[in-house]
Amino acid sequence: MIKEIYSHRTIRKYSDIAVQKKIIDEILEAAVRASNTGNMQVYSIIVTTKNEIKEALAPAHFNQPMVKEAPVILTFCADFNRFNKWCLQRNADPGYDNFLSFLTAAIDAIIAAQNACLVAESNGLGICYLGTAIYNPDKIIEVLNLPKGVVPITTVTMGYPNENPPLTERLPVEAIVHYEKYKDYEKNDIDRLYSVKEANEENLKFLAENQKETLAQVFTDIRYTKKNNEYFSNVLFKVLKMQGFLNYDFSGSI
Amino acid sequence: MIKEIYSHRTIRKYSDIAVQKKIIDEILEAAVRASNTGNMQVYSIIVTTKNEIKEALAPAHFNQPMVKEAPVILTFCADFNRFNKWCLQRNADPGYDNFLSFLTAAIDAIIAAQNACLVAESNGLGICYLGTAIYNPDKIIEVLNLPKGVVPITTVTMGYPNENPPLTERLPVEAIVHYEKYKDYEKNDIDRLYSVKEANEENLKFLAENQKETLAQVFTDIRYTKKNNEYFSNVLFKVLKMQGFLNYDFSGSI
Repeated sequence: MIKEIYSHRTIRKYSDIAVQKKIIDEILEAAVRASNTGNMQVYSIIVTTKNEIKEALAPAHFNQPMVKEAPVILTFCADFNRFNKWCLQRNADPGYDNFLSFLTAAIDAIIAAQNACLVAESNGLGICYLGTAIYNPDKIIEVLNLPKGVVPITTVTMGYPNENPPLTERLPVEAIVHYEKYKDYEKNDIDRLYSVKEANEENLKFLAENQKETLAQVFTDIRYTKKNNEYFSNVLFKVLKMQGFLNYDFSGSI
Repeated sequence: MIKEIYSHRTIRKYSDIAVQKKIIDEILEAAVRASNTGNMQVYSIIVTTKNEIKEALAPAHFNQPMVKEAPVILTFCADFNRFNKWCLQRNADPGYDNFLSFLTAAIDAIIAAQNACLVAESNGLGICYLGTAIYNPDKIIEVLNLPKGVVPITTVTMGYPNENPPLTERLPVEAIVHYEKYKDYEKNDIDRLYSVKEANEENLKFLAENQKETLAQVFTDIRYTKKNNEYFSNVLFKVLKMQGFLNYDFSGSI
């Protein structure tokens, strides 16, 4: 049983204490040990510690303050560039300019990211995943000089915590888990499974602040709107094309 | 420092010892505690322990023997079905039938999967990720009854190890990590970074068995071919469409 997993809190405020190189190295070593597809290791990690690069990255993350304030930022990328170069230098013809290869590399990048986060947390650091990496991948590509074959998948800010938030509510395990086959949710299942979330004090505050009738409306009308999701879906597709992951005939499949 | 991370080996052979419910529950609880986007928890986990379902799943994983032999199989799915149902029951209009939402949910599913794997390993179990979940998602959807809004992302087999393989070689950390900005690889970087992999005895065996000139050709010509990648990319796109994640106008972006 790994206590970091059960006590995980997202940390958005960091103290000024620097993170020692030894700890960063341990975190990166953990990432590199991660399970991955065919041991191809088709991901890269960009370590940002310089203020000027943090400032350049900030708009890509909608200027969330953690990006400028965290001592260390890791951007995990799907990366077939290195593997493709190796193939070409070894008289092998790489066929990784397609959607399956992108998703494979994205999965590898995330497994590595979670290893890194847990080792960071076990060293007393706090972490925050920034989902915004897939909202503005074009901006991140520009700032970090990512070549063709490389797409940012997630960004993690880390540093020693300067806050001590309570454990976040989660849906009960029975909401997430299905035994043997998927059992679709009836109306009363949804009511029961979301009841704790809906009664949660923090969530009720959200609702009041946003003057919404239901917590679900806070998500659909404010936090994750259809309009934004479609806009950023298009950005993401354009980036996949630009980075060379839609380089085949897929007209029959969509 | 978490020792399970540094000592991870993929385990493909399992003993007959059953995995106790208490341990499965700990593993699932760890998954549910995982970091996720906006605390929406848009993923589901299907637990397979019955032989008839393992047998039905096996072809979707190209009949890799672990699927029938492992005592426990977890299939981690991107899942907006539950969240969408909640929104609709709460007078909120969900806008999650798009590619960004799919990738968000896929990322959440993988973070949860790695938490589960590490807690499994810390309990003495061995695990194996099956990348094949995204090769044959249509077959898995059929066997596990996954409704619209749900797409399998990865499958993990687990059980007590009946083998003790050595630690797998990995690229050196410097191959994966870039400081501040991406530094693209020169010809001699590739030669240096892949030299240990290419000299590895297991990999040399691979090469000889497959009668290939270079290790890279084992990947491009046999293990992960362009033809298969494109075929399965099309399957994946069709599944995204079928499960309702391409339900918007993206013609301008591709």
